[in-house]
Amino acid sequence: MFYLTALEMLELLRTRQVGAVELLRAHLRRIEEVNPRVNAIVTLTAERALAEAEQADRDLARGEWRGPLHGLPVAHKDLTETAGIRTTYGSPLFADHVPPRDSLLVRRMREAGAITLGKTNTPEFGTGSHTVNELFGVTRNPYDLSRSAGGSSGGAAAALAAGMVPLADGSDMGGSLRNPASFCNVVGLRPTPGRVPAPSPTAAWFTLGVPGPMARTVTDLALLMSVISGFDASSPLSVTESGAAFAGSLETDPARLRIAWSPDLGGLPVDPETARVTALAPRVLEGLGARVEQVRLDLSDAEEAFRVYRAWYYALSYGGMPAERLGANVRWNVEQGLKVTGADLARAERLRSGLYRRMSRFFGDHDFLVAPVSQVPPFPVGEPYVSEIAGEPMPDYLAWMRSAYWVSVLHAPAISVPCGFTGDGLPVGVQIVGRPFDDLGVLRLAHVFERATGHGARRPALR
Amino acid sequence: MFYLTALEMLELLRTRQVGAVELLRAHLRRIEEVNPRVNAIVTLTAERALAEAEQADRDLARGEWRGPLHGLPVAHKDLTETAGIRTTYGSPLFADHVPPRDSLLVRRMREAGAITLGKTNTPEFGTGSHTVNELFGVTRNPYDLSRSAGGSSGGAAAALAAGMVPLADGSDMGGSLRNPASFCNVVGLRPTPGRVPAPSPTAAWFTLGVPGPMARTVTDLALLMSVISGFDASSPLSVTESGAAFAGSLETDPARLRIAWSPDLGGLPVDPETARVTALAPRVLEGLGARVEQVRLDLSDAEEAFRVYRAWYYALSYGGMPAERLGANVRWNVEQGLKVTGADLARAERLRSGLYRRMSRFFGDHDFLVAPVSQVPPFPVGEPYVSEIAGEPMPDYLAWMRSAYWVSVLHAPAISVPCGFTGDGLPVGVQIVGRPFDDLGVLRLAHVFERATGHGARRPALR
Repeated sequence: MFYLTALEMLELLRTRQVGAVELLRAHLRRIEEVNPRVNAIVTLTAERALAEAEQADRDLARGEWRGPLHGLPVAHKDLTETAGIRTTYGSPLFADHVPPRDSLLVRRMREAGAITLGKTNTPEFGTGSHTVNELFGVTRNPYDLSRSAGGSSGGAAAALAAGMVPLADGSDMGGSLRNPASFCNVVGLRPTPGRVPAPSPTAAWFTLGVPGPMARTVTDLALLMSVISGFDASSPLSVTESGAAFAGSLETDPARLRIAWSPDLGGLPVDPETARVTALAPRVLEGLGARVEQVRLDLSDAEEAFRVYRAWYYALSYGGMPAERLGANVRWNVEQGLKVTGADLARAERLRSGLYRRMSRFFGDHDFLVAPVSQVPPFPVGEPYVSEIAGEPMPDYLAWMRSAYWVSVLHAPAISVPCGFTGDGLPVGVQIVGRPFDDLGVLRLAHVFERATGHGARRPALR
Repeated sequence: MFYLTALEMLELLRTRQVGAVELLRAHLRRIEEVNPRVNAIVTLTAERALAEAEQADRDLARGEWRGPLHGLPVAHKDLTETAGIRTTYGSPLFADHVPPRDSLLVRRMREAGAITLGKTNTPEFGTGSHTVNELFGVTRNPYDLSRSAGGSSGGAAAALAAGMVPLADGSDMGGSLRNPASFCNVVGLRPTPGRVPAPSPTAAWFTLGVPGPMARTVTDLALLMSVISGFDASSPLSVTESGAAFAGSLETDPARLRIAWSPDLGGLPVDPETARVTALAPRVLEGLGARVEQVRLDLSDAEEAFRVYRAWYYALSYGGMPAERLGANVRWNVEQGLKVTGADLARAERLRSGLYRRMSRFFGDHDFLVAPVSQVPPFPVGEPYVSEIAGEPMPDYLAWMRSAYWVSVLHAPAISVPCGFTGDGLPVGVQIVGRPFDDLGVLRLAHVFERATGHGARRPALR
C-alpha cells in the first residue's frame, strides 16, 4: 500500500476502502522496517499521528472531508517549524527546540487534512547537498545504502523513495529540492520565489531560498503544490495567484513547445554516466513531438551572485550564533558572509539583474530549458562532498552543485524528474526549468516526460 | 477643455465631439500659456505629438480605437526612458541622451493610444522631494508660484494641476509620487512594488523605488493604472495579476471599513497647518460611515532600513559616474552608499522584515492606515529643502520626508489625495495606505474620500 501514489491513497480514503488509521499504520510499519537503514525520518510522531488519523476516520464516517489531503500521512523537513514537534534545523543548538507555531507551509498542509508523522533529516541549517549532521547522522540513498541521498532535503527524498511517506516538503537555496530528488529517483520542484510563500521575520525579501514540494510522481507533487502555494500577505514576495490551477489537469501537448537542451549548463564538468543518462532527455522530448534545440548557455554570472547573496544570508541568519557550536560548513558560510561588503552585494545585484534580463530574452525563444540536475550520480555516503567531477577538482563543498545553484539565481521554477539510471543502478534526474512564474508549465512538461520514460516507477532495492 | 477629466476627454474623443488634434492643440496652448511660469514640462514634443494626433483622428474616423487612452495627450517623467525623445534624468551628464527604447511603462501607455507631448521635470536622478536641477531649473507650485511643487515627480504634479496634461506618470522611492501630489492638489499612487513592473538591468530585485500613476482625480488615476499595471516577465518582482481590475468600478461602502488614523505616523513633527487640515480626514471618513480609530504607531525601524537600502542603491546606480559632475544631493547619497557594509544591509533587512511582520498584524486589525502625506505644506521655492518642522530642526535634506519614506518601507500601496488647504491657500494631501497588494482597495477608499471632500476640484490661481 505504501507505494501507491498519494492520489490513489486519497481515493481509497475517500471511498472508504481504506481508513486513515490503517493507512498510517502501513506507513509506520514501513518506517519501522526501512528507516533504521535509511535514516530519513529523524523524529517520529506516531502517537499524535494515530490520534489524528482516528479523528480523520471519524470525520470521514460523518461524511466530512477536511481538504484535499484528508487522512494522508506526510513528513516535514526538519528545517520547517512544526508546533509542538521538535524542530532541530539539524543543529545541536536546537536539539530540544519545540516551536510554538506551525510554519505557513505546515499549517496549509494540516488545514488540508494531512497527518504529520514526523520530521525528515537535513544537514545543519540545510547547508550542503549531502544530508548528514551531528544530531542524527547521515541519510542513506534507498537505491544504494552506501551512497548519499543528496540534500538538503535528503531525508524527504529518501523517505519518499523508500515508501515511508507519499508526500513531503523541502526547501531549496542551491538545489536542495532538486539534487536529492535526482539522487533518489523522485520529483522535487523548486518553485518560483513567492509561489509557495515563505514569511521570514529576518530576511523577508530574500529570494534564493524557497520552500517546495516533493513526491514520487508529478501529479502527486502538483496536488501538494495546490495546497502549499497561493497568496499569503505575510510575505511581501508572495505571488498573488491562488494554488487552484495546480489541482487541474497536467495534460499538455508538447508538440508546440520549443525546448532548449543544455548538456552542461554552459561548460560545467559532467560525470560521464550522468551525461549518458541525461542525454536521453532530449530524445524523449523529441519523441513527444517537441522541438528540441541544443543551446550554448552562459550562466556563469550566477556563480558570484549566488555565493555573495548566500554568504550574506548566512551571516545575517547565523552570524549571531556561537561559532564553536556551528558545523564546519555553516561556519565557513558565515565567515564568508561576514566579509561581504555593500559593494560586493551591489556587484552581485548587477550580475543577477543582467542575467535575468538575458534569460528573459532566452525565454522569449524557448519555452523550457532542460539540463542535468546534478553533475554527478549519488556519491559515497562517507565523503563530505564531491571533490572532483570528470577529472576537474572542486575547490570547496559548494562547487559541485553549480548545475543546481546557477539555476537558483534565475528566479525560475525548476523541477527534477527521473531520467534513468547509471550502469550501477543509481538514479539520475533531469532538470526542467521554466519561465519565471510558469510553475504550472514546468509540471505539465515534467508530467508527460515522466509518463514517457516510466523511470520513476522503479523501486529501490534498499540494500 | 484642459480641466476636464481624462475620462471626459476620452468620451469626447470616442463620440467624435472633439478630435485628438483639437485636444492636443488645447493642451499645447495651455502649456504655452502657463509653463513659462510653472516650468513643469522640460521637453516638448509638439510636432511628433501632432503627427500622432492626426493619426489618432484618422484611426477614429475609420472606427479604430487603439486602446483605453486613444488620442489622450500625456507626459512622462524625465526619469523614464522614451524612445527618440531626450531623457535627461535631470542630470547634465545626460543632457543630450536620447534612449533607443521606451520603458515598459511608456510602451504600455503608447500601446493604449496615449500621445506623448513631452517630459516632466525631476530633480537629478529623482533625488529629493523638491524639483530643481541644473539643466532646467525649478518647477513651481501652480497654487503659489513662490512655493515648491514637491518632488521628485514635481513636474508631473504641477503639469496636472496647471491643466497641461490630464494624466502623467512618476516614480516613488521616498515619497516622489505622494509629496508632489500633496503639494499640487492632485492624486499620486505609490503602488505595491511589482504592481507596475519596473524591469531593471542593474537592480531588478530592488523594491523601494517604484513607478506609478498621477492624475487630477482618482478615477482617472485608476484608468492609468489599468494600463500601466499587470504582469510582465521582464521583472522578477512583477505581480502576476492583470491590470483589468483597475478599469472596473471604484464604488465601495466604507461602512464596513476599519480605518487607523495616525496624525503623526508615530511621533513625527507636523506643521500646525498641515496638522489642522489633515485632522479633517478622520472626520470625513467617519462621516462616510467608516470606523476610525486613532492609533499609536512605531514605524521608526523604517528610518535605518530606508536610509541604508537607499544609499546602497545610489552607490550601485551612480557610484560609477564622475563625482564632480553629480549634484550635491546625489553625491551625498552615493558617498553614504559607498560606506554601507554587508552587515549594515543585513541589519536593514532584519529591521524591515520585523516591521513587515508587525504591520501584517496591524493590517489584520485595520483595513487602511490614514496619515499626513507630508509633514509640511509647500515650502518656499528658493529653499533647497525643509530645514525645520514645528520647531524641530531637520539634520539633512531627507529627514523632512519621513512621513512618506517610512511608508515606502512597508511594501504597501499608498495614495496621496487632496485633503484641503492651509490658511494661505496651499494644498495639503492625506495619505491612504493599504495592505500590501491591495492597490484597488486604496483607490476605492480614495475615490469616496475625494468625492466627499471635493477639494481636488479647486483650481490653482497660477500666480
